Amino acid sequence: MRRTTSLFVLMTLFTGANLWLFAQGGPKGQPPTDAETPIGPRWWPSEFGPDDQRGAANRQTPAKVLEAKDLITEGKVYQLGRLYESEMPNFGKRHFSLTIPGLPTGKPQGKNQLVYNDELVSGEIGQVGTQFDGLGHIGVRVGTDDVFYNGFKLSEFGTSYGLEKLGVEKVGPFFARGVLLDMAGLKGERALPKGYVITPEDLQKALDAAKAEIRAGDVVLIHTGHGFWWMKDNKKYNDGEPGIGLAAAKWLTDKKISLVGSDTWATEAVPGEDPDRPFPVHQWLIVRHGVFNLENLDLSELAKDRVYQFAFVFSPLRLKGATGSPGNPIAVR
Amino acid sequence: MRRTTSLFVLMTLFTGANLWLFAQGGPKGQPPTDAETPIGPRWWPSEFGPDDQRGAANRQTPAKVLEAKDLITEGKVYQLGRLYESEMPNFGKRHFSLTIPGLPTGKPQGKNQLVYNDELVSGEIGQVGTQFDGLGHIGVRVGTDDVFYNGFKLSEFGTSYGLEKLGVEKVGPFFARGVLLDMAGLKGERALPKGYVITPEDLQKALDAAKAEIRAGDVVLIHTGHGFWWMKDNKKYNDGEPGIGLAAAKWLTDKKISLVGSDTWATEAVPGEDPDRPFPVHQWLIVRHGVFNLENLDLSELAKDRVYQFAFVFSPLRLKGATGSPGNPIAVR
Amino acid sequence: MRRTTSLFVLMTLFTGANLWLFAQGGPKGQPPTDAETPIGPRWWPSEFGPDDQRGAANRQTPAKVLEAKDLITEGKVYQLGRLYESEMPNFGKRHFSLTIPGLPTGKPQGKNQLVYNDELVSGEIGQVGTQFDGLGHIGVRVGTDDVFYNGFKLSEFGTSYGLEKLGVEKVGPFFARGVLLDMAGLKGERALPKGYVITPEDLQKALDAAKAEIRAGDVVLIHTGHGFWWMKDNKKYNDGEPGIGLAAAKWLTDKKISLVGSDTWATEAVPGEDPDRPFPVHQWLIVRHGVFNLENLDLSELAKDRVYQFAFVFSPLRLKGATGSPGNPIAVR
Amino acid sequence: MRRTTSLFVLMTLFTGANLWLFAQGGPKGQPPTDAETPIGPRWWPSEFGPDDQRGAANRQTPAKVLEAKDLITEGKVYQLGRLYESEMPNFGKRHFSLTIPGLPTGKPQGKNQLVYNDELVSGEIGQVGTQFDGLGHIGVRVGTDDVFYNGFKLSEFGTSYGLEKLGVEKVGPFFARGVLLDMAGLKGERALPKGYVITPEDLQKALDAAKAEIRAGDVVLIHTGHGFWWMKDNKKYNDGEPGIGLAAAKWLTDKKISLVGSDTWATEAVPGEDPDRPFPVHQWLIVRHGVFNLENLDLSELAKDRVYQFAFVFSPLRLKGATGSPGNPIAVR
Repeated sequence: MRRTTSLFVLMTLFTGANLWLFAQGGPKGQPPTDAETPIGPRWWPSEFGPDDQRGAANRQTPAKVLEAKDLITEGKVYQLGRLYESEMPNFGKRHFSLTIPGLPTGKPQGKNQLVYNDELVSGEIGQVGTQFDGLGHIGVRVGTDDVFYNGFKLSEFGTSYGLEKLGVEKVGPFFARGVLLDMAGLKGERALPKGYVITPEDLQKALDAAKAEIRAGDVVLIHTGHGFWWMKDNKKYNDGEPGIGLAAAKWLTDKKISLVGSDTWATEAVPGEDPDRPFPVHQWLIVRHGVFNLENLDLSELAKDRVYQFAFVFSPLRLKGATGSPGNPIAVR
Repeated sequence: MRRTTSLFVLMTLFTGANLWLFAQGGPKGQPPTDAETPIGPRWWPSEFGPDDQRGAANRQTPAKVLEAKDLITEGKVYQLGRLYESEMPNFGKRHFSLTIPGLPTGKPQGKNQLVYNDELVSGEIGQVGTQFDGLGHIGVRVGTDDVFYNGFKLSEFGTSYGLEKLGVEKVGPFFARGVLLDMAGLKGERALPKGYVITPEDLQKALDAAKAEIRAGDVVLIHTGHGFWWMKDNKKYNDGEPGIGLAAAKWLTDKKISLVGSDTWATEAVPGEDPDRPFPVHQWLIVRHGVFNLENLDLSELAKDRVYQFAFVFSPLRLKGATGSPGNPIAVR
Repeated sequence: MRRTTSLFVLMTLFTGANLWLFAQGGPKGQPPTDAETPIGPRWWPSEFGPDDQRGAANRQTPAKVLEAKDLITEGKVYQLGRLYESEMPNFGKRHFSLTIPGLPTGKPQGKNQLVYNDELVSGEIGQVGTQFDGLGHIGVRVGTDDVFYNGFKLSEFGTSYGLEKLGVEKVGPFFARGVLLDMAGLKGERALPKGYVITPEDLQKALDAAKAEIRAGDVVLIHTGHGFWWMKDNKKYNDGEPGIGLAAAKWLTDKKISLVGSDTWATEAVPGEDPDRPFPVHQWLIVRHGVFNLENLDLSELAKDRVYQFAFVFSPLRLKGATGSPGNPIAVR
Repeated sequence: MRRTTSLFVLMTLFTGANLWLFAQGGPKGQPPTDAETPIGPRWWPSEFGPDDQRGAANRQTPAKVLEAKDLITEGKVYQLGRLYESEMPNFGKRHFSLTIPGLPTGKPQGKNQLVYNDELVSGEIGQVGTQFDGLGHIGVRVGTDDVFYNGFKLSEFGTSYGLEKLGVEKVGPFFARGVLLDMAGLKGERALPKGYVITPEDLQKALDAAKAEIRAGDVVLIHTGHGFWWMKDNKKYNDGEPGIGLAAAKWLTDKKISLVGSDTWATEAVPGEDPDRPFPVHQWLIVRHGVFNLENLDLSELAKDRVYQFAFVFSPLRLKGATGSPGNPIAVR
């Protein structure tokens, strides 16, 4: 950390500090006025300690499990994960390929004539389809390095074969209260329009309408209705989305949640509040607060059944050094 | 080719219900004496109906969820999934590769200097590491076709880009009572030796020792201790294993369980009871009974803590048309 | 081969021969009238012997090399291969992904601060972009098996991890006379329209116009102009193409060529002559005659420079058990 | 370039120039005494111009083709490429996987019952097996950037999806005189031992024994015999190798060759002359001189037949943005 300090000093002195001369600002959409990094003052060490790599997953405690358990009254399970298929809408150049080697993969063997099939998958598996953003996914270029949650630097933990810190394998399972905020329902629309910036007031209204509460460690899922277009009109699905803005993100992090998710590919509004600042909510949640983000969920059944509080269970794959995880999270009421 | 000839004759003469005149046997390890298919009499239609593709996952009901919920008393969560890493022991020619495209994958953009990382994975993702065998994984060559659970024929549902029936995306989540049968503990050994065939009597003793019971729809996990060698001595890990035999498999399917799992790569003994019949337990469980199989679990913590009954939660990835799923199942007590 | 015979007898007797009752025909587009297989009379054993796996590559002899050498007069080299890139037009569900693990892949090491980059590729590498169809690529379902060049059966040589016969690694290099037939130039069009069926008369006219000749073992490249659309309008490129018909294919195989190539993705007309018979030219060339096929070539420079005879050099990658090879063939004059 | 200059000035002033205080040296194995970069004085702009991205491939001219042509007297072709297979010895964590999706990949269609197979490949395709090192493969960390051939900086041309400069697609074909230097033959050994550093004197002796000459633009292949162990004892193959040292590399670059290749995985001695400087010959050849490097060749037949001068032909795959290319180069006499 001392080295970091001197680096900052050096850069401020000799590089002219111009990396930090953006007008910057707080969570309301206005840039912060301080200037330590492109996203404001330094955010480390984490409230969970300077060595922490799990962020808000630390709020997953036995007490949370017991709280969540109490929300299970009917035993009904909702799958929130979407199908992984090659045609699904992907971000940028990401791809997903699934093939069956041979048919069958293993030819008949033995008197019992056993055959078997495998599947070969290639793709950005933690960042396609229903995806859980780990803490190694998002960072900020500060000077000549990329800084992530808890101040970890990519130059120190990144390798071509996986991340040596902040890998998704360190997160552990979520078994917590889940709260659905049905924004589409609140607005009486099938889907909020792309670019719609969900505000704290919106969230509060949905919470009130649900007669629900959000506690520390909870999982908050935001139903925008945008998921309706998944595999129906992938171009439309990918071409922008409604989602939370920075103020709403702050509203959530102030509540000390563990995880936020949505039926969109980024959880935050696209285009966002400031055209010069792409995906600022990702940075606010993941980099600054260690709060996780689940994208491309299917929340339609939950919303239809007006299930606003439930036990949420999701256990990320322990992909060593990965930036995220695919998943099929469940809500249980 | 003589076999082919007689096969053709047979097929032409009797092509209804009569493809199956091999000498065969029952679940005790001796070949069955009936002869309809290489693994005995035809096993379809399934008890869950002639169109069913979910097998014993049908036993996952709201009632099971509520039963499982009652086992959650402390809120402690155990991860049962292992790390996915390129060096892990794989079966045959399977591989697992994880790389990070670029470092970072997404270069700094915007005034907020956002960067991001993805991971690119290539591998037989449903059949490496901790893996859940779906109903499209295992079959039996019968005549010129490969027959799977509920009599589905690979020629009718297999495609190069995924299975059109029995795909893992159809299974749905497991939220059920879990029972640990600690065979290593029962024997007072770190690990049962490879080739050790676990019998019904063994299972019963472990069940009695655990003062537990097995109900329809339950998940049964068998701790052999063999998992000790994972990533410590991969050659030893892969070179055979202890596991259940056909009689124990029958004991389990008679109890109408949903899923069996183990800390080994096949759940069944390798080498098995009959050198001429590889992996007969897989066929018994998956093909005949639609009972799922979870392999390469880490059961050491459960065993150490003597947690014999718990809520088991696992939600397979909805990989469209896949034969299996990776996972990080959890046990909650 | 005797085994094959008895199989045919059996099938004729018991399956009722109805697999062979299609009206079938010769190379003129009319179906063959004989009935041994869906593509006419059996085509094996090959003229190169019953065990041959190299087909028309056997015509690549030292004498051909010396003939080709004599066409090198200026030393000018033309690259005929296209760029491999993820956006290129692919057939069906094939994909091509190239990423650089890390940047750099290998971090600085030693006092010399060495760094290195690799590239990770995933894709149907022998069947995307400029591609060479090997003899294991195309076959015909006959009864319950798939029959390929020289009568080899997929059930006997196919494995999930590569072909044990007819793999592209067995073909060897081509160093031969190359002849360009400029159909677009002949017609005075930028490109022949999709579905245009090139006839023997067309080919002869182009050959005459070129004042060239075709000898046994030669490589014939057909410039249709369709390649103009590559990466300019990929939808148009993929949505049909001009190409040779069965009669032109016969004209070529009668001349005992080794390889035919084109600036299209299939070399043959799409849609073809008979809507009920997709890609019959592939079968004629590859299955029946062991003549290879190079697709997605860039022939525009050769055509522009009116280079009609040249030394052609292409050396397929020795991908063990593969169905084809990527490539960057060259023409040298 | 001006930016580069100012960067250097800045770094020298503020970073204290201590990055350049290694003892360094020239091609004899002694470190250079100058200090501009970890591998000596800056090496750019290239003799081929400040924008050049093709390095010594610029020496591939029509005149070279005609020279090479004259070496073709018998028409005999030697394949120098090895089989690509999953078990081949790979460097580090690289892998190669080839599977056939389905068997067949394309099910019977049409009255002609067409079937087809594809292969799916995953792997570091330009850096496994017989491999051609492009100019984007090797670089040097200088300060905070990685500098490559002609001074190009990775921060400016590297992307996660391929290199925007120095990609292998820019190299073009090699059709030139090839010279085999049979070091194993010279020493009368099956293979030189690992770590053997081939000297300029060694090369000269082999050249004299071959009664051959090396001209500008030539391709030089060095037969060490180490290739004997390929797929016979892969551990031995990978665990070090004989190869050229820096002085021999200088001898080659002084002769203005285009490409050097060997029957080893690095062409240079491993372990090398200086334990603190891994793979310095790669840097000398590729970074400083733009001379290409072909690894894992099979030179045994050439050596056995005592073919010392021949036409060498190799056309790298045009993999956009790739660091290298697989290949099956040929020698023709």
